[in-house]
Amino acid sequence: MDIRQANQVIKVNLENLQTPCLVLDKGILERNLKRMSDTVHKNGVALRPHLKTAKSAKVARMATAGEAGGITVSTLAEAEYFAGHGFRDILVAAAQPPLKLDRAAKLVDRGVSITLVTDDPGLARAIAAHPGAFRVLIELDSGDGRAGIKPEDPSLIEIGHALDDKLAGVMTHAGHSYECRDPECIAIVAETERSTVLTAASRLRDAGMHCDIVSVGSTPTMTYAENLEGVTEARPGVYMFQDLMQVEIGVCRKEDIALTVLASVIGSNKSENRVLIDAGALALSKDRSTQSTPHDAGFGEVWDISAKSSYGPCIVMRVYQEHGVVTSSEQLPFDELALGTKVRIGPNHACITAAAHERYYVVDGGKEVIAEWDRINGW
Amino acid sequence: MDIRQANQVIKVNLENLQTPCLVLDKGILERNLKRMSDTVHKNGVALRPHLKTAKSAKVARMATAGEAGGITVSTLAEAEYFAGHGFRDILVAAAQPPLKLDRAAKLVDRGVSITLVTDDPGLARAIAAHPGAFRVLIELDSGDGRAGIKPEDPSLIEIGHALDDKLAGVMTHAGHSYECRDPECIAIVAETERSTVLTAASRLRDAGMHCDIVSVGSTPTMTYAENLEGVTEARPGVYMFQDLMQVEIGVCRKEDIALTVLASVIGSNKSENRVLIDAGALALSKDRSTQSTPHDAGFGEVWDISAKSSYGPCIVMRVYQEHGVVTSSEQLPFDELALGTKVRIGPNHACITAAAHERYYVVDGGKEVIAEWDRINGW
Repeated sequence: MDIRQANQVIKVNLENLQTPCLVLDKGILERNLKRMSDTVHKNGVALRPHLKTAKSAKVARMATAGEAGGITVSTLAEAEYFAGHGFRDILVAAAQPPLKLDRAAKLVDRGVSITLVTDDPGLARAIAAHPGAFRVLIELDSGDGRAGIKPEDPSLIEIGHALDDKLAGVMTHAGHSYECRDPECIAIVAETERSTVLTAASRLRDAGMHCDIVSVGSTPTMTYAENLEGVTEARPGVYMFQDLMQVEIGVCRKEDIALTVLASVIGSNKSENRVLIDAGALALSKDRSTQSTPHDAGFGEVWDISAKSSYGPCIVMRVYQEHGVVTSSEQLPFDELALGTKVRIGPNHACITAAAHERYYVVDGGKEVIAEWDRINGW
Repeated sequence: MDIRQANQVIKVNLENLQTPCLVLDKGILERNLKRMSDTVHKNGVALRPHLKTAKSAKVARMATAGEAGGITVSTLAEAEYFAGHGFRDILVAAAQPPLKLDRAAKLVDRGVSITLVTDDPGLARAIAAHPGAFRVLIELDSGDGRAGIKPEDPSLIEIGHALDDKLAGVMTHAGHSYECRDPECIAIVAETERSTVLTAASRLRDAGMHCDIVSVGSTPTMTYAENLEGVTEARPGVYMFQDLMQVEIGVCRKEDIALTVLASVIGSNKSENRVLIDAGALALSKDRSTQSTPHDAGFGEVWDISAKSSYGPCIVMRVYQEHGVVTSSEQLPFDELALGTKVRIGPNHACITAAAHERYYVVDGGKEVIAEWDRINGW
């Protein structure tokens, strides 16, 4: 990628980028995509990648290459954006209030298959009564305690009947896999996730209803599930970028993290052993996922411009709106962290960190920026 | 404000808005602006409002009406946006890396007075050597431990000399006023803030340098400072909107909070005494400022659509990317929180919550949306 500066055309690279900004490593991304695709296919399941992390059409095209083509999103803004980029099979995996059904129906009118989710008989009736030709999955709680009904809940049958011919299947998200710290634990959660949807699917079928789609997914469970028999599709998302929390869970290694925040040193305080960078609460987010793990990374780990951990145990200890305070349990190498030095911050939680940014600067191992990819934020 | 829907022109009000979104109450905003303006003027100081919270030209015009006209910002993106809206005296109150000086200088070339800050001799030399006609304030640490040198630091004189005729004065931000919980404590911090800049200003003047601008500011200290003699300007920001943290500090009452997030109920779980809303980590932020106070509000307090606390001690206990889990220490009034019900969330920290949103829906006490104001996010 080139930019024109002072009448010269120069190559954009990480050294001449304005900070803070998002850097996405394409090679790592491709490796992560292939690993998940292989794993899910090995289990005989279709991959319906969740784009809530990437929110990018370029990434979505890479993530769906060789797959069935369907995607998962978390907002109608994402659904509209991806529909505008040609995606025709979209699962909106968070319940939408009745007021938004008209908006979702406009996508159906444009020829997009829109699948909604609900765990509420009232919402099921509202969707059923709406003229929009939606498909609907009943949302189940496999132990996360966020949304969804238990598979044995009597309202399952009520919701199924209310949806009538819009009922397409069942889904769950085992978010509590994030409490695991090893593959054995995750495999157990994955089996609970599977048994939850299978139980519900059986009940619906026993009651004479169709249940074609049996959908599960979280990056940890889809990485380590040992058996997905009866499941039809998997919806992991953060596997594309990975992050420090996934490292702590045991899902990936630090070198699998494709997303970092590029920041610049704007000051230092040697007597306090700290360096100030221009990425704070807005550029990194206030996500503290790793706080509860053995490797609390503060608001992110500080790596050099090549995304190598060359500064020792260096983290963003505190954030203010636009300032990050970097420190270390060892003496900071102040000579290497001089004013203006570019660093890359490995994020606690890629989904939340990425959401403050409008675009990715794409590299492929080196410092050269080979592309700029947009993102769709907001609602 | 009107919208066209199904061939009818209808009034936009909070009931027919898509959620989640930001709601700004103009009447409360005006009251907050007047209160701070009166307080600062009583102390004989110019008000240079910090726009890092509002990031809105409409709000900036209201906040500078009757003032000297200068504003404070936290990013160059804000500086460019406000310059584009006619503001001509802008203090960028966070140190910028050398690479960004060219960009800042373009604003100077357009006739905008740009004041930068630094606490680093190297950055001071870089700014001094740059062709851009910047003004520069030396940043001091009055106890916050974020950026700035101590007023007695020997490098103060070195930085002053390095800046040469670009030296315009000194500044500090007493962010540690957020650790106070009553006006007496805040008044003490305000006096430390004042004495910090006065000490540095005296040292510079004694060394034969000019120090015209003596700049301080945080919403708590500017609300309760008893004496600002020697200070020339005040830079509070969050006072415009206020938030739950400012209530805890003792700076305002809950009814002074002008900014809320409008959300919709998308599910409920009566046996677990919780309601699910469509505002989660992205719409509310993961800021947990009130966690360390006697009134931990989780990720925000849940009020009814009129922003009245009619649900009892109701908070957003947990957030996921797009889901908020609402609960209460009392039985939730499920009849009043039925599917689709609109609620308003009072934010822990207005600056961080607002940053996920691109616009404000403006009301004036009631539910009618009287305007839509844009915001400038990013860098």
